[in-house]
Amino acid sequence: MQFLPNRGVTAPRGFQVGAARAGIKTQGLDLALLVADGGATCAGVFTTSQVKAAPVLVSAAHLSGGQPRAVVVNAGNANCCTGEVGLANARRMCDLAASQLGLDARDVLVCSTGIIGHPLPIAKIECALNEMTLDASDEDAARAFMTTDTVPKFIAAQTQIDGQTVTVGGQCKGVGMIGPNMAPLQLHGTMLAFLTTDAKIDAPRLQRLLESAVARSFNSVTVDGDMSTNDSAILLASGAAQIEITDGNETEFAGLLGAVCIELAKKIARDGEGATRLIQIEVAGTATESDARRIALSIANSPLVKTAIFGRDPNWGRIAMAAGKAGVPFDAQKLSFSLGEVELFRDGEPLSFDLLQAEAQLANEEVFIRLQLGEGTANWTAWTCDFSYDYVKINAEYHT
Amino acid sequence: MQFLPNRGVTAPRGFQVGAARAGIKTQGLDLALLVADGGATCAGVFTTSQVKAAPVLVSAAHLSGGQPRAVVVNAGNANCCTGEVGLANARRMCDLAASQLGLDARDVLVCSTGIIGHPLPIAKIECALNEMTLDASDEDAARAFMTTDTVPKFIAAQTQIDGQTVTVGGQCKGVGMIGPNMAPLQLHGTMLAFLTTDAKIDAPRLQRLLESAVARSFNSVTVDGDMSTNDSAILLASGAAQIEITDGNETEFAGLLGAVCIELAKKIARDGEGATRLIQIEVAGTATESDARRIALSIANSPLVKTAIFGRDPNWGRIAMAAGKAGVPFDAQKLSFSLGEVELFRDGEPLSFDLLQAEAQLANEEVFIRLQLGEGTANWTAWTCDFSYDYVKINAEYHT
Repeated sequence: MQFLPNRGVTAPRGFQVGAARAGIKTQGLDLALLVADGGATCAGVFTTSQVKAAPVLVSAAHLSGGQPRAVVVNAGNANCCTGEVGLANARRMCDLAASQLGLDARDVLVCSTGIIGHPLPIAKIECALNEMTLDASDEDAARAFMTTDTVPKFIAAQTQIDGQTVTVGGQCKGVGMIGPNMAPLQLHGTMLAFLTTDAKIDAPRLQRLLESAVARSFNSVTVDGDMSTNDSAILLASGAAQIEITDGNETEFAGLLGAVCIELAKKIARDGEGATRLIQIEVAGTATESDARRIALSIANSPLVKTAIFGRDPNWGRIAMAAGKAGVPFDAQKLSFSLGEVELFRDGEPLSFDLLQAEAQLANEEVFIRLQLGEGTANWTAWTCDFSYDYVKINAEYHT
Repeated sequence: MQFLPNRGVTAPRGFQVGAARAGIKTQGLDLALLVADGGATCAGVFTTSQVKAAPVLVSAAHLSGGQPRAVVVNAGNANCCTGEVGLANARRMCDLAASQLGLDARDVLVCSTGIIGHPLPIAKIECALNEMTLDASDEDAARAFMTTDTVPKFIAAQTQIDGQTVTVGGQCKGVGMIGPNMAPLQLHGTMLAFLTTDAKIDAPRLQRLLESAVARSFNSVTVDGDMSTNDSAILLASGAAQIEITDGNETEFAGLLGAVCIELAKKIARDGEGATRLIQIEVAGTATESDARRIALSIANSPLVKTAIFGRDPNWGRIAMAAGKAGVPFDAQKLSFSLGEVELFRDGEPLSFDLLQAEAQLANEEVFIRLQLGEGTANWTAWTCDFSYDYVKINAEYHT
């Protein structure tokens, strides 16, 4: 498998993207359109929040009732908590994109991200869609749905499956309100991810593959634990590579898709609001994957762990605290953990360690926390960032 | 009922306290001893964390096996993640206090708060206990177990029950690592609370009354959602008031105890690390109390809600987001909420409101958020504080 670091959603054959400035954000690109011009199968997962934005409700309906092959997305306005008008606007966005592309509205999905509770400026979107051409670069496509993101996030990867080159491309955004928990009709300063592949994959298999990849990637990244009302991850498979994914070769494709999703998820944590460090938390030795995930996310969401790492302080007691509060039963006498290369705690007893060496583990751009529970063989990995003054600054000064 | 704002644990008859500097913290009082000199019944609830500090394990054992009438507490060291040595030190603290008081060690409970993972300086504690006299003021007793608290937290209240004056006194500490979830053998930059009363109450009733009061007070206050390894709340009843609490008058006593616990819990949120505002979140109209509590605490723990309030920004979409992510099913079309006096959202539709008036709700020292779910008749109230630069500063610079 090979990463294509400068490519994104058009790396697989069969996809085109457009990007434009509609004028919803105060500056920059804020509207994008992705289409599989020769048709596609489609899978999607959306926020599990009880407060779902209008575009989430509309996209979920189109995913179950239509044959989506295009996605229209805007930044600057989440079209959430906007009532009946919001639903009408989300449907109108699909209508406008569909007529531009010569498709049925139900074959278009819609995503929005930005401020909650303000009416979507649909007229601006209509003007920009009318003039949109499908010749944007992968980078501009990724840039066009950024909110407080500081860098566009996109990547592609390819591998050989049964002698054919299969490519997966992806782009995502999100740096705050990140604590996704997506499921079919369920995802998290909104996490949006668009994935493409040129493999041929039937819709039920595609949905299953997406759910599995999202669980171990986007659903395992957190910035602030705040699940958004708009989280969505969408995967389109064009089939242009002339190879079908079946039971026989599914594992290889899942590995490719999973690798792209994890790279994108790490880009979210690395660019998390105010982040100075990417933190990878590996929990092993639990009875179930669910147990490992809960402990990993409890640590990843702990303000005390995250501020300690921002302060470059190997205050490992906070790791033990955050593991203990996860709501997962375990025997603290079997708990062991380490910070990067430095083992701190083994079988319930603190170890003596070199403080300078421990501090050095926090000087790296990536910080690794590894726990062993001794309760079983399951494991999970989560990603987060440290918690800095700039997180407060960004979110206290982000005015309505 | 009348509050006695300048009194604390010795306001009820039958209690004495001592406070001393053992030299565990870099400065100030750091050791206290509370005793019901004529005997008492005792109830306790402790952290539900899987990683329980040594004093929690020892106190829970003494509560079930002894007849505790005294509590010894230190600040500056949590005696947590300290292995077998830590357990021995916690037991030794009880031994030392017991011999000073002429009691059996099992009649003494022990609490510790401070840094995790460092050996307890038991020799310093022994020296200080040997010289301790039981003549401290309520304020000094409350001061002697502060960590990053900026003010001592204590209060008392009294009422007439069956013609007799009954008093409840209390003191607590905790401003960070606050997200308690205490239960029998279970609590949460550690929340410690010591409560006293001169009513006569048998131990099973006392335990039930404590659990009920803690649920609606200390277990409903959060600063950062990080449940501590050391959280403990202990209630001693001396019986010195010559009135017994029975089924007939329990409600009146529960009201008195609840009022003291809620006042103390609000003091914790108001003094939360970096706090500039006390936030009260009232959730009503859910099917169960558990649903209302989960929604209230989801809002109370949301970094985005808390930074918005620090920024004096009525960014109400974040309230909707935090309610939606609580994991409680509800119909967003029936959701209504307000910020102080300003109604923002009714039955799933945004309301037009005066932005200046909404901002004015955030200028008060206490901010009120009220939600109505329309799903039932249960309700819950939670307390938190805003999230400021100083939270990050305090926790990034709190070095091990």
